Amino acid sequence: MQLEIDQQRIALEIDTLAAFSEVEPPAVTRVVFSEHDLSARAWLKARCVEVGLKVREDSVGNMFARWEGSRPDLPAVATGSHIDAIPHAGKFDGVVGVLGGLEAMRALQRSWFQPVRSIELIQFTSEEPTRFGVGCIGSRLLTGALPPSVDATLRDGSGDTLEIIRARAGFSGDLASVRLADAFYSAFMELHIEQGPILEREKIPIGIVTDIAAPASFLLTLHGQGGHAGGALMPGRRDALCAASELVLAIERFARSSGSVDTVATVGTCEVHPGAINSIPSRVKLGVDLRDTDGERRNRILEEIKDAAAEISQRRQIQIEMEMLNADPPAASSPRILRAITNACSEMKIPSRPIVSRAYHDSLFMSRIAPVAMIFIPCRDGVSHRPDEYADLKDIAAGVEVLARALADLSCDVELDQSS
Amino acid sequence: MQLEIDQQRIALEIDTLAAFSEVEPPAVTRVVFSEHDLSARAWLKARCVEVGLKVREDSVGNMFARWEGSRPDLPAVATGSHIDAIPHAGKFDGVVGVLGGLEAMRALQRSWFQPVRSIELIQFTSEEPTRFGVGCIGSRLLTGALPPSVDATLRDGSGDTLEIIRARAGFSGDLASVRLADAFYSAFMELHIEQGPILEREKIPIGIVTDIAAPASFLLTLHGQGGHAGGALMPGRRDALCAASELVLAIERFARSSGSVDTVATVGTCEVHPGAINSIPSRVKLGVDLRDTDGERRNRILEEIKDAAAEISQRRQIQIEMEMLNADPPAASSPRILRAITNACSEMKIPSRPIVSRAYHDSLFMSRIAPVAMIFIPCRDGVSHRPDEYADLKDIAAGVEVLARALADLSCDVELDQSS
Repeated sequence: MQLEIDQQRIALEIDTLAAFSEVEPPAVTRVVFSEHDLSARAWLKARCVEVGLKVREDSVGNMFARWEGSRPDLPAVATGSHIDAIPHAGKFDGVVGVLGGLEAMRALQRSWFQPVRSIELIQFTSEEPTRFGVGCIGSRLLTGALPPSVDATLRDGSGDTLEIIRARAGFSGDLASVRLADAFYSAFMELHIEQGPILEREKIPIGIVTDIAAPASFLLTLHGQGGHAGGALMPGRRDALCAASELVLAIERFARSSGSVDTVATVGTCEVHPGAINSIPSRVKLGVDLRDTDGERRNRILEEIKDAAAEISQRRQIQIEMEMLNADPPAASSPRILRAITNACSEMKIPSRPIVSRAYHDSLFMSRIAPVAMIFIPCRDGVSHRPDEYADLKDIAAGVEVLARALADLSCDVELDQSS
Repeated sequence: MQLEIDQQRIALEIDTLAAFSEVEPPAVTRVVFSEHDLSARAWLKARCVEVGLKVREDSVGNMFARWEGSRPDLPAVATGSHIDAIPHAGKFDGVVGVLGGLEAMRALQRSWFQPVRSIELIQFTSEEPTRFGVGCIGSRLLTGALPPSVDATLRDGSGDTLEIIRARAGFSGDLASVRLADAFYSAFMELHIEQGPILEREKIPIGIVTDIAAPASFLLTLHGQGGHAGGALMPGRRDALCAASELVLAIERFARSSGSVDTVATVGTCEVHPGAINSIPSRVKLGVDLRDTDGERRNRILEEIKDAAAEISQRRQIQIEMEMLNADPPAASSPRILRAITNACSEMKIPSRPIVSRAYHDSLFMSRIAPVAMIFIPCRDGVSHRPDEYADLKDIAAGVEVLARALADLSCDVELDQSS
């Protein structure tokens, strides 16, 4: 199969989408259901409609653009990602998967390919946690990873509920209707920048994601005893920040010594109360993010952290509470989809390597209702979530072609639902 | 000498002063030069005038209430403290020294005592750092520990300068005129709650302060490398919070192993940038408070902290900057004044013990121009700077009587300027 990817068009569309932003280029801020997000969605929908795709939107604003196959009775194959962007982000995260998926379908159309299974492009609502504090809202609702009752419980900074905000954005209707049946799709693929340094360092244009790490995030609140920095002697102190410092270092140590580089742990936040230079910290809250491709190993490290907290708590007489924010299971990719991606790279004669995704993606949740895999392309210095995030156009085009070939392969496999 | 301390009057006056507050009792918030502070000052001035004291106020609002002695040519003996209060403080910190000093003078008047040297009560401006970020502004200016140029450089949260704010409060004139000559007073004593647990625990009503610790405070800013919590592998990380945690624990260790319980170190603030649970901390700022009665030992520990920072910086590839906020020298009490206080306790047949002040006080600066000592009384659970700060009325009265007797003793010692 000969495929021509229109690099100039992709470049133009990425820049066009980047302009739907609260801030000046190169930074992009596009918060879900903001004026800029809604304009971007309308623009994207028009791009899908103009190439003959049938567009459907669900109650939470997930968008599905369908290229009907010759066997519409079979579950479709799907691809997609998100277009919302955290404050002062770049223009590639998520966008490459959405616009790349669209260009993959257009390239297949230009090559006179006829799908057997239908092919769908999905744009997921609120992959980023910016507005509601929880990410992947669209894919979670789609797959039952969040209950419809979040309509009333998720609130943004202004205090408005998801229900009110989505209605204002034009998305009404029961949130329960968002949920898709298990095996609704026969395959889901997501093209994405790596958000890490490996592909660039090894000069390999395609990473074939074998596993999406299992993220767990939790808060540790340490209750000690405050007091005047001059008044209390060292031996009698119950300083919450000293105890928290031991925990931070223990968490780093456990992640480093897990036995696998696929374990990463980060204490990203540390709030100190009362927070005066001459007051002993009476309360500290740590925000911890722990990821692993192996859910059991991750849980083992969670237990190590709990044990360390208990030991520190007893020795320092500091009460420590742990509040889990989430602990999603990891996702392993489908062997059949991995084969489709590997074959595409072989046909194109470009190098690829297996890789692990330690970042959260909608694919993590889509794995609950469909076989999944992801295609990674390099990004400069591994940087993401920053205005200087950058992916080379040639790498993007290679990723789009791999995606197109894999979509074509899977679309034509009528046995897919048995094999993957 | 027979002295009667009017406990009921002290209790009433403490409660009256506590009512000049932005917040409801038992909490007290009285920020320097606020409407409540100015009302409290006016009320206090009236109390001084009604018992025949001559009141003078200087350009920064320090108040001096003088009971003229028979030898006005000799340097006076003085006592005093402050009446400003941090947000949600209690009603005893500072106030006991001001109202206690006033009652000491009234009790001496009632006993027909006639001072030889004049006796002065001082109410110092802005002992608390709440408004301008630096404490003891009045006593520092009085003693040359701050230059008059701070008039233009000290600003409050609204951006207004000290010059503008004191003018609005009715205190104008050149700030250079605040400075008193060396040996302006022959003695200065400050009555204060302990703000620590020792006296209460040992059931001793009077602590005789032999040394005021030398406080040093500084900021440590750690510059690492940020990134996505999922994207960056553990080995390549330059996590500023992990490095900061090592520093926090090193600082605690150095203070604990200084060889003296008089060394205390506190990391009271820890700001993390960017401060997202899924972002590696790229920058952390620690606020450190280090106190010791021995200035050399304190400086040795400062060097240990710098060495530890250098080692951590190199090993973790984290740039660390240190910014000194202040490093005042410690103050040792005057033997002659300590003797006056000890004798007073003996006359009253109440137990006392030597004690060290690790908290900042105006006395620390007054030691630059006069022999000083402090008198501590117990406070419940060592608590201060909180609404539940509490000192027993009997203990306050005992402290006031000790102060009165010591003031009388020193006032009558015409050789004082040679002996102390």
